[in-house]
Amino acid sequence: MRLIRLTMVVAAIFIVTALVARIRPAHANGGAGKQPLIQLEADFMKAAAEKGSKGYMSYYADDGVEVPNNAAIIQGKANIAKTMSFLDDKNNHLAWTPVGADMSSSGDLGYTYGTYEFHAQDKDGKAIVEHGHYTSIWKRQHDGNWKVVLDMGNSSPEAGK
Amino acid sequence: MRLIRLTMVVAAIFIVTALVARIRPAHANGGAGKQPLIQLEADFMKAAAEKGSKGYMSYYADDGVEVPNNAAIIQGKANIAKTMSFLDDKNNHLAWTPVGADMSSSGDLGYTYGTYEFHAQDKDGKAIVEHGHYTSIWKRQHDGNWKVVLDMGNSSPEAGK
Repeated sequence: MRLIRLTMVVAAIFIVTALVARIRPAHANGGAGKQPLIQLEADFMKAAAEKGSKGYMSYYADDGVEVPNNAAIIQGKANIAKTMSFLDDKNNHLAWTPVGADMSSSGDLGYTYGTYEFHAQDKDGKAIVEHGHYTSIWKRQHDGNWKVVLDMGNSSPEAGK
Repeated sequence: MRLIRLTMVVAAIFIVTALVARIRPAHANGGAGKQPLIQLEADFMKAAAEKGSKGYMSYYADDGVEVPNNAAIIQGKANIAKTMSFLDDKNNHLAWTPVGADMSSSGDLGYTYGTYEFHAQDKDGKAIVEHGHYTSIWKRQHDGNWKVVLDMGNSSPEAGK
């Protein structure tokens, strides 16, 4: 009888824990969930700065989608990679700053958005700077790693706006 | 004793159900989860077509973010609404077509992306059409309703690309 009681108490704890986990509202870990994505973005930018297009593309999912400004939507990492060789030119430098982020309560889908600056040189070697916004959607993959499943960019009128 | 056994069986069913729900991998309902978002987008567009800016804004979360092309990021539904009165001009018509969508395994965060067409008239009454892409991020709110927490737009070179 003691064993049955103990089993029932353990079962009750399991039930309550599992049910609370299921009914937890979407926003419950919205705050705590942002930090891993902000850290990911910093790692992502470091990889692009140090390893160029290969470093940048290492953060994309195989089925990732690029939604570029003034160009057609690109489906798949292999096709996106073909457009990113400009990151291998040492005169070019792409830097971005997250403004906000959020994650699902299940911790497997999240997004970041913010501003970017692209520093390059024109044909005469003169420094040029482009400003814009981005949104990146991140999804946890089968192996537990986070990858970009969608990235979109557009233009902003001035730096950081 | 029969009551105890029955209680334990019910408890066991609860535990298994709840645990299976928790360990379901992130990609498990990636496919099935898209349909509600595609339907939401259709309802969203209908509301905008029938009720103008009020219909459009009724799909935004209070803390929604707009990431416009060639303008600064706008934080909050009230501020975004100030920029949407162009939808109340009957000469203007905004239509969009989703290309893809996905949702978290917890079913509380998802996104859609696709192409849009904006039909308007210039100063001389001549019809003009703008083409672009969009990404909308949807989050289930406290009351169970889905709202847009981020919307971003850019330009595309031609219709539907």
